[in-house]
Amino acid sequence: MSIQQALRADLDSGSVLTFPADQPLKLDSGGCIEGLQIAFTTYGRLNAERSNAILICHALSLDQHVASDHPVTGRRAWWRTLVGPGLPLDIERYFIICSNVVGGCMGSTGPSSVDPATGKPWGLAFPMITIADMVRAQAMLVEALGIERLFAVVGGSMGGMQVLQWAADYPDRLFAAVCIAAAARHSAQNIAFHEVGRQAIMADPDWRGGDYAAQGVRPEKGLAVARMAAHITYLSEPALHRKFGRELQRDGLSWSFDADFQIESYLRHQGASFVDRFDANSYLYITRAMDYFDLAANRGGVLADVFRPAREVRFCVFSFTSDWLYPTVESRAIVRALNAAGARASFVEIDSDKGHDAFLLDEPVLREALGGFMASAAQARGLAAGA
Amino acid sequence: MSIQQALRADLDSGSVLTFPADQPLKLDSGGCIEGLQIAFTTYGRLNAERSNAILICHALSLDQHVASDHPVTGRRAWWRTLVGPGLPLDIERYFIICSNVVGGCMGSTGPSSVDPATGKPWGLAFPMITIADMVRAQAMLVEALGIERLFAVVGGSMGGMQVLQWAADYPDRLFAAVCIAAAARHSAQNIAFHEVGRQAIMADPDWRGGDYAAQGVRPEKGLAVARMAAHITYLSEPALHRKFGRELQRDGLSWSFDADFQIESYLRHQGASFVDRFDANSYLYITRAMDYFDLAANRGGVLADVFRPAREVRFCVFSFTSDWLYPTVESRAIVRALNAAGARASFVEIDSDKGHDAFLLDEPVLREALGGFMASAAQARGLAAGA
Repeated sequence: MSIQQALRADLDSGSVLTFPADQPLKLDSGGCIEGLQIAFTTYGRLNAERSNAILICHALSLDQHVASDHPVTGRRAWWRTLVGPGLPLDIERYFIICSNVVGGCMGSTGPSSVDPATGKPWGLAFPMITIADMVRAQAMLVEALGIERLFAVVGGSMGGMQVLQWAADYPDRLFAAVCIAAAARHSAQNIAFHEVGRQAIMADPDWRGGDYAAQGVRPEKGLAVARMAAHITYLSEPALHRKFGRELQRDGLSWSFDADFQIESYLRHQGASFVDRFDANSYLYITRAMDYFDLAANRGGVLADVFRPAREVRFCVFSFTSDWLYPTVESRAIVRALNAAGARASFVEIDSDKGHDAFLLDEPVLREALGGFMASAAQARGLAAGA
Repeated sequence: MSIQQALRADLDSGSVLTFPADQPLKLDSGGCIEGLQIAFTTYGRLNAERSNAILICHALSLDQHVASDHPVTGRRAWWRTLVGPGLPLDIERYFIICSNVVGGCMGSTGPSSVDPATGKPWGLAFPMITIADMVRAQAMLVEALGIERLFAVVGGSMGGMQVLQWAADYPDRLFAAVCIAAAARHSAQNIAFHEVGRQAIMADPDWRGGDYAAQGVRPEKGLAVARMAAHITYLSEPALHRKFGRELQRDGLSWSFDADFQIESYLRHQGASFVDRFDANSYLYITRAMDYFDLAANRGGVLADVFRPAREVRFCVFSFTSDWLYPTVESRAIVRALNAAGARASFVEIDSDKGHDAFLLDEPVLREALGGFMASAAQARGLAAGA
């Protein structure tokens, strides 16, 4: 059965595409992954011209279930504010693809996958991956789907990094690019927060040097602490103040180390629920990929040189005023480089006090501005309005 | 031997004062500590009028060795930029006192002290403490030293909280108050970061429910992670960028989870060295005290009402533009409340990109402005210039 045949079999329900051994994923680290599996979901229908495909790139802790509830956990579609009928990423108009990143833990090959050489989970024997590796795997998927050129690549946070990497590595294979709440390189502060999370995981004795899966345990406490630390960076101080302030769980203080404040209880819940849905080694690998991300590093640090071959791509860059993880200044640097490269770039800074997480929330300005950009790009691409 | 006699014996070298059992430290939680020990250091000489005493209050991870190198670890005096001959807190002019907070681990009674009832370290049986408890213990010390009224109380970060608490609880026992890089209550974001640190410590199996000292182990990994997370909050993003950026430890990436970036190595060092000098349970208790801090909570949330009895105290409040842990807006709230209470308040916002840690660094504007404030207050207090 060919890849195309395999794909047709179960495109609607979320698929896993296994590449033959002679099509390995080549990695920036020098190695490669044979028998690569990419788990993905699609929504809508590819038109006859194959010109209406949009690839959505997910963030660190998310997955391919962008517009439908998670089939296992039941968690609601993570971008239901933007992807759906009548929404900017309209599944009645576009063919939407979202794949789990390589290194992830939702069906694509990652450190929790079985290493064919040993028959055991890879663990730390899994090769280090980069954002460019993730994008290379997506390009293989898109090609396998018979799509020569994407109408758009869209993503927020780490998804936005992938969008920029797409523009850098495959400028002729996308028509439009939407980068939300991201940066062209990870800052020292971002690396620092990730390093705290990694150290928390690796400090957990149940991590077992990364071999926990083979040993039947899980570094739950370490992963929970990592998630708690990261979660603070996704919210703004004003949002935390408005949402929780110093509100108590009960009447009066406990005079103990129980969760007295609602913010403590909330964070503990975030940590505990994350452990149920995410793999600790994937967290290590994906944060590392983000930390390694520096789009212009191999171009002498000149971001405009990276974007010059992507002059024909229509870009839209979004930032949020209260996002301190990927602050507006990072988006401005991207836009400046795009302008310097002679690319078409729209830039929207959205006034929000919700912090980095705003890109996942119902932000009317984001919805409207993205809708306008997509409609305009669709017209330019000759995509008829409506279904 | 009376307390005064005991004090005279070793005032110069750093002392530990043990209060008799009939002078327990009463705690906000309802309990009390009998046989309280307060470790402290003094510099300079108390004048005949006993009017030149300054109490310095230390921050979370610091101690009483404010102007002399640590006798055990050799660490340099932590406020050598401000305390010393010819400096704003001039040890040739003032009698400087700095005591380790109750709950600490540098000689004052804390969770690592031996519980007289069991003969073992207190661990989690130690009562919960508050900033007000710390200040109450300081007031007992100051009284034992025969000082009715302090010339000034000075502190930064958690030390600044103690300064505000002094003004609230003992307005007649201080002439001037200097609050640097602090807040009148802990924000949700601050609580969140502390909670991450506590969870990291308590997740370490060597924490043993707080009983590690009795069991001969130490939760080193958990405490190191806690310190790493906290340390990020002490620095600004621009400072991290300037100091580390994306600079590597070696030529090229390791393609592993080793410390590739200098910021990673720096953080790991901060974590590892903290473990050598700090007690994990003290970290839990002191962060909890800070989280519980909300100066106006018992006065209907009206901070001005707290300060009204302190109208005669001369206040100076400092903040740093890049301090995101205790941002300027918090200092402004203090100053507004002082003004509303009719108190004398100077306010200096210092332009610095060094983040919260700026209060410990050589900041010329801080040194000069504090020097001016102290000189003016000394004149008003009738303290002669010079030795």
